[in-house]
Amino acid sequence: MLRDLKHQVLEANVRLVPSGLVRLTWGNVSGLDAAGGLMVIKPSGVPYVSLRDDDLSVIELDTGRQVEGKLRPSSDAPTHLALYRAFPGIGGICHTHSPAATTFSQAGRPLPCYGTTHADHFYGTVPLCRALTAEEVEEDYEGNTGHAIVETFREGGIDPIAVPGVLQLHHAPFTWGTTPLEALDNSIALEMCAEMALGSLRLNPDLAPMPRHILDKHHHRKHGPGSYYGQK
Amino acid sequence: MLRDLKHQVLEANVRLVPSGLVRLTWGNVSGLDAAGGLMVIKPSGVPYVSLRDDDLSVIELDTGRQVEGKLRPSSDAPTHLALYRAFPGIGGICHTHSPAATTFSQAGRPLPCYGTTHADHFYGTVPLCRALTAEEVEEDYEGNTGHAIVETFREGGIDPIAVPGVLQLHHAPFTWGTTPLEALDNSIALEMCAEMALGSLRLNPDLAPMPRHILDKHHHRKHGPGSYYGQK
Amino acid sequence: MLRDLKHQVLEANVRLVPSGLVRLTWGNVSGLDAAGGLMVIKPSGVPYVSLRDDDLSVIELDTGRQVEGKLRPSSDAPTHLALYRAFPGIGGICHTHSPAATTFSQAGRPLPCYGTTHADHFYGTVPLCRALTAEEVEEDYEGNTGHAIVETFREGGIDPIAVPGVLQLHHAPFTWGTTPLEALDNSIALEMCAEMALGSLRLNPDLAPMPRHILDKHHHRKHGPGSYYGQK
Amino acid sequence: MLRDLKHQVLEANVRLVPSGLVRLTWGNVSGLDAAGGLMVIKPSGVPYVSLRDDDLSVIELDTGRQVEGKLRPSSDAPTHLALYRAFPGIGGICHTHSPAATTFSQAGRPLPCYGTTHADHFYGTVPLCRALTAEEVEEDYEGNTGHAIVETFREGGIDPIAVPGVLQLHHAPFTWGTTPLEALDNSIALEMCAEMALGSLRLNPDLAPMPRHILDKHHHRKHGPGSYYGQK
Repeated sequence: MLRDLKHQVLEANVRLVPSGLVRLTWGNVSGLDAAGGLMVIKPSGVPYVSLRDDDLSVIELDTGRQVEGKLRPSSDAPTHLALYRAFPGIGGICHTHSPAATTFSQAGRPLPCYGTTHADHFYGTVPLCRALTAEEVEEDYEGNTGHAIVETFREGGIDPIAVPGVLQLHHAPFTWGTTPLEALDNSIALEMCAEMALGSLRLNPDLAPMPRHILDKHHHRKHGPGSYYGQK
Repeated sequence: MLRDLKHQVLEANVRLVPSGLVRLTWGNVSGLDAAGGLMVIKPSGVPYVSLRDDDLSVIELDTGRQVEGKLRPSSDAPTHLALYRAFPGIGGICHTHSPAATTFSQAGRPLPCYGTTHADHFYGTVPLCRALTAEEVEEDYEGNTGHAIVETFREGGIDPIAVPGVLQLHHAPFTWGTTPLEALDNSIALEMCAEMALGSLRLNPDLAPMPRHILDKHHHRKHGPGSYYGQK
Repeated sequence: MLRDLKHQVLEANVRLVPSGLVRLTWGNVSGLDAAGGLMVIKPSGVPYVSLRDDDLSVIELDTGRQVEGKLRPSSDAPTHLALYRAFPGIGGICHTHSPAATTFSQAGRPLPCYGTTHADHFYGTVPLCRALTAEEVEEDYEGNTGHAIVETFREGGIDPIAVPGVLQLHHAPFTWGTTPLEALDNSIALEMCAEMALGSLRLNPDLAPMPRHILDKHHHRKHGPGSYYGQK
Repeated sequence: MLRDLKHQVLEANVRLVPSGLVRLTWGNVSGLDAAGGLMVIKPSGVPYVSLRDDDLSVIELDTGRQVEGKLRPSSDAPTHLALYRAFPGIGGICHTHSPAATTFSQAGRPLPCYGTTHADHFYGTVPLCRALTAEEVEEDYEGNTGHAIVETFREGGIDPIAVPGVLQLHHAPFTWGTTPLEALDNSIALEMCAEMALGSLRLNPDLAPMPRHILDKHHHRKHGPGSYYGQK
């Protein structure tokens, strides 16, 4: 079952290494069958090139129970589940340790919108999610990572559909989208924006975010009812 | 019609990703049939690898009316049209979000000529074009982007043939040339010069532009009546 | 003899260049047959693509005597031998001049743990090994390099299994693991962590190491008796 | 005639782009037939992939007269000739605009020896050659570039065999070697050393050159009568 979704999840995972986002096995992509309440995710620690559709893990969204796949799911699966439960409308999640975005995570800095490349994918600052406490780590590290991300968006009043990504302090980025491949594209965009922000801040340490009217224009020409980028 | 021009526009677009200038669909190349008054340009949001000659959009230079191609043209088409109308002698335009050049755009800094690599392609500083006002964005974002670029060259007394490129504030570079492939080469050169300028300014924060007599020599050995670089 | 080990040592050496860690012949991987007391290592100065199993050098761990292979072993062989003798449980060693890790070596700075990517591979700071004295260089440069590395771990109270790598001042990194391919993976991880640390320190010059409870969690979910990353 | 030399010059030129040193046509390699007094060099402005042995230009060392090849030689040919005439024992020259080395050229900084990677190829600082005066440019730009490089080594008391490369102010690096492929390898090494120096200086702005006894050891284990790196 879930043949099409598995196929897209597989394809997005296979693209992680050639996209330059991932070395070794530092990344995973999942997809959601919202109607069936099932998540498809990469198995843990398996090299991408040897992955086949049947190796993917299928997990019930409500219970977290694995219902298909003989391999253990990604250890980050509870983070993915928490995001799917809290962010209605997302259908794919991508987690990588891509170098420039992870550099911002490690440095403890959110990523403001410094240009139109950013605005095309993220409608404003990509927020920084706090680190977990020792108690949260002890209790349920991966699940609580998801809860902390959800808290970041709720307390900051940020729409996760308009800003489909986050940088977790000390860790790395998560992005999402309506599909697994869109989640991957947002990881590619986030990495490029982080790389360019590193250079832009070097040239101009006091750099301010891009003016609001250009942010609005670039985001809305690509997203929402009045969009006109791409094909109908 | 326009078979040769379409072929070159297609080839230049296909090279954007392997050249390292473009991720996802962040770039477009156009070409001009000056005699026929027609512009050929990439369709909007279509991946480069799946492009075929017939997918390209043909647009009348004077009216902006699409006369061929079933897909919507690049959303940046009005910018291209404005440049072809104002800069006689150019036959190709290339727009990318290449990382180092976009870094200068985002930081709000023009790119002075710091070495012979730059001088071989751009006869002096690659200028920074201002951002549009809210009114200009509202009225016609892409068309007014072109007008602002033209204004940058007119008011600055810069010859667009000698300096075939610009960095737009908050956005990214545009380059041009006598053909679509020459426009692409100028984007490759601009990216490399921006990357090297980032490092040169790190090593020497007070770096001055290269002396004029070397700029003159390098530019003129490659361009104009006394040039002797390359084959006859 | 040693067919499987030779095969893995060959594969790890061949991967050095495509992994982005090595240019020219600046790197070598070895493997240990602990039961037989034999080390297999790359021959000196031979391009990786032309290597075959029979070209590898086999050296006795105790005596340093070459017992197989017509080519001269890597000039760094005495360093490898010193590490195998002093660090029980390691089965592979990888030496490269990978650019970011070598940058830290040249700058004379150890690499603190700035994030979970680092914690997944190195349980704390990757230490800096001092330079050799003129007398040590004169007496036995490569052997004494190994002794200085061993001294770094002994005097610093560092467990070489938990922190499988070192940066040698003025020189470059060495990493190790239970197998040659794991040693290579640790070189890939070290390079990526050094690259991200360069950027993280630029964004935040006073960056502190990651909190201990997250270091513990990430390292222990991947290593040791309670680990749950990957497949059983 | 010169079949073997032409073949090696061709191969070295073809490797410039895949090696990451060159974009577009920004580089050229030559080789010397010292006995015959003939230099073989790339033609000007021709893409590397379309080069064939017969396209190469053959030029008399003494007269500078082209004696073979229908295409115009590289515009930098007079620089190459000046170096072959002044530096006995070199058999190949490589000129690129590789990004990190060119960054040092543009910033006007020589490249001190910050580590063993550098010492393996260059026995000390790679010097900076001054810019030409307006008169020198006017009289013979390319020939005088060669003379200025020769002057840099003579006045600085630098042995061009021990330090086979130079950075020209505002311009880019030249390297050489006993063969065209060794000249290329030295360009690869110089680029990597410049890249690592950029990072090392960022981590440690007051970085001193590597101690002399390690420079001596690393250089002499690879070069000269007592060398033991590589195969006999």
